[in-house]
Amino acid sequence: MKYSKIFSKTSKQPPKEADTINHRLLTQAGYVDQLMAGVYSYLPLGLKVLNKIENIVREEMVAIGGQEILMPILHPKTNWEITGGWQSIDVLFKVKSRIDKEYALGQSEEEVVTPLVLGRVKSYHQLPIAVFQIHWKYRDELRAKSGILRGREFYMKDMYSFHETQEDFQVFYEVAKKAYLKIFKRLGLTAKVTEASGGSFSKKISYEFMVLTDAGEDDILYCSECDYCVNVEIAKEKSQDECKMCHKGKLMIARASEVGNVFDLGQKYAKDFNLSFTDKEGNKQFAFEGCYGIGISRIMGVIVEKFHDKDGIIWPESVAPFQVHLISIGSDAESLYKELCDAGISVLYDDREIAVGQKLADADLLGMPIRLILSDKNNGKIELKKRTEEKVELLTKSDLLMRLH
Amino acid sequence: MKYSKIFSKTSKQPPKEADTINHRLLTQAGYVDQLMAGVYSYLPLGLKVLNKIENIVREEMVAIGGQEILMPILHPKTNWEITGGWQSIDVLFKVKSRIDKEYALGQSEEEVVTPLVLGRVKSYHQLPIAVFQIHWKYRDELRAKSGILRGREFYMKDMYSFHETQEDFQVFYEVAKKAYLKIFKRLGLTAKVTEASGGSFSKKISYEFMVLTDAGEDDILYCSECDYCVNVEIAKEKSQDECKMCHKGKLMIARASEVGNVFDLGQKYAKDFNLSFTDKEGNKQFAFEGCYGIGISRIMGVIVEKFHDKDGIIWPESVAPFQVHLISIGSDAESLYKELCDAGISVLYDDREIAVGQKLADADLLGMPIRLILSDKNNGKIELKKRTEEKVELLTKSDLLMRLH
Repeated sequence: MKYSKIFSKTSKQPPKEADTINHRLLTQAGYVDQLMAGVYSYLPLGLKVLNKIENIVREEMVAIGGQEILMPILHPKTNWEITGGWQSIDVLFKVKSRIDKEYALGQSEEEVVTPLVLGRVKSYHQLPIAVFQIHWKYRDELRAKSGILRGREFYMKDMYSFHETQEDFQVFYEVAKKAYLKIFKRLGLTAKVTEASGGSFSKKISYEFMVLTDAGEDDILYCSECDYCVNVEIAKEKSQDECKMCHKGKLMIARASEVGNVFDLGQKYAKDFNLSFTDKEGNKQFAFEGCYGIGISRIMGVIVEKFHDKDGIIWPESVAPFQVHLISIGSDAESLYKELCDAGISVLYDDREIAVGQKLADADLLGMPIRLILSDKNNGKIELKKRTEEKVELLTKSDLLMRLH
Repeated sequence: MKYSKIFSKTSKQPPKEADTINHRLLTQAGYVDQLMAGVYSYLPLGLKVLNKIENIVREEMVAIGGQEILMPILHPKTNWEITGGWQSIDVLFKVKSRIDKEYALGQSEEEVVTPLVLGRVKSYHQLPIAVFQIHWKYRDELRAKSGILRGREFYMKDMYSFHETQEDFQVFYEVAKKAYLKIFKRLGLTAKVTEASGGSFSKKISYEFMVLTDAGEDDILYCSECDYCVNVEIAKEKSQDECKMCHKGKLMIARASEVGNVFDLGQKYAKDFNLSFTDKEGNKQFAFEGCYGIGISRIMGVIVEKFHDKDGIIWPESVAPFQVHLISIGSDAESLYKELCDAGISVLYDDREIAVGQKLADADLLGMPIRLILSDKNNGKIELKKRTEEKVELLTKSDLLMRLH
């Protein structure tokens, strides 16, 4: 893609009100545009990043048997009254139609997915079932802040699984946990699985997937030796205590951002909607339900918080909008651009007629993994620099093509 | 995909309240599920159709230079007050937060896209610009009906173009019109371009892309000989009049469904937001804007209205969730299924242990373009039947693979 064709360019001025690095860098680089607090537009390059994260999540959900669906954002009030959420969830956005009919905007979808799935399940033969969607969600936050880390409108993958027994849920939870850890690895993130308090209704323990970052909103205690990790909110221990799991490590405190979660919902929703199935013994039974979230737009923000330097963003290869950022100095890079595209390499070509210094600064701000410079001075060789390294290499075109494949 | 793995199966019972063919067939076949009037969930097979339509539309918008973005659904009241829409648009859904902040749910995006784009345009050099998104939209309809043809929540592609002059808009409109006609052709539809009345604010003529169908909500007059076509709402002529364009044909009246539209918005929105650019002569100037919509979910409904018979849906190849519906009678079709998948053919394999008659009925209801039957009786040959034909052919496996490529 030619950079001149993209309407949202970089900006030298940081946005007003930017309280976090992700908000500042994503806005200055032209990836997103804040419409109002907690609500953003995704511009051409930003939408590419969002789609790349989304596709990685989708692949791993399909790989563990998740069936993709798309549920409405506009929900009937009735469903939320049945579960008690209409009265008790303070972040639930409520909408009134012109004839005073009331709706909720989806902030989680148990109220829709439970009747949708369990309304079709008559026998234990049909279980387990796991369905997921990737969709926009709404939360009436009193204070939306931290850029795209905590929005009033945000993009999420939410999966729901339905089981004959609590044990079967536990089995699937372990499968989903592995898929989650694989997703975070593919995204270049290391996530810790913490125990946390349950959601609005769940009395049970829930699990959170946390990425360590100073922009996070939670404090977690993690063991210096083993995998044990707990949200400070529910921890009985404190920093520097001995780990109660391995009895070797010490507990360390760190700021972290929640990028995923799992809720063990038990039979609550099946019972609320009075949707039962016939079990092996021929008895009526209520299904056990699990809910598994991953914040897609939030992850985009977390990645920027984790991977940046003073000059700009440093996208991990798996989510970078383009692999290569091509700049020409003096020479015309048009034919090299075409050759790279023909070879199947994704290239952002800065074809603007502006000062070289500005082009170099923009390349750092935009953060593609590899920067190429075609310059008259290099006798036909092309300069390659990784965004993560200072080292610069000069390569012939054929060596370059080999390297990029 | 194995049909046994999909949680949303066909149903023998038509849904209650189904007032249209698309609602009845899409629900019975398990493509969609009505959550409430005008609001639907898209189930695994239905989401595949929606995505296929969406991708065709996306390809053609990118081909004419459209830049894909994604704008919020939740809009600030201010933007809608500036344009007058907050007071005058009766289908605008309004949301009040718990601290009494007010928002609109996007039903069209001029209020967001105009400041987003024109806020970045300082000079005529930067124009024209065309951006588009594919996103959910909301209309507070008094009566939502006709299945997914007219929803309170619906999926739309909306493009917005910005121009230095009215003439430049006209040039781009012709380009967009060709792209639209190409899209409808790829979707298996023939659309007529009609003149219609403007939207809420536009005094100018707008254009509608209409597909003839008895389930439509508009009446149009079209010439039996030339391309002339007009919405009855604004027509000065009546049925059987001579065509005023070609003076050869007669005007015919027909029921039609609007699948796309174009609005010539002039300088209204640029002026409302007071966003000007510097033109060639160095003067401040307001950009001319065009809006181009295509109803993605509505098209899915229109296709079902157009392509069905008494037994079920007949998907055009370009949007069918799978190309092939594979059924086994007696024999095990597992290895044939794998071979077809390995050959890159998209197959829905009905692997359930149920009566053959039910499988055949489901194949007709679901509507894949090609049905294959592997039966003990056919000496290893495979029966192929197109959904659109009665003719049945017996093919060897190698002939079959040749045929499907």
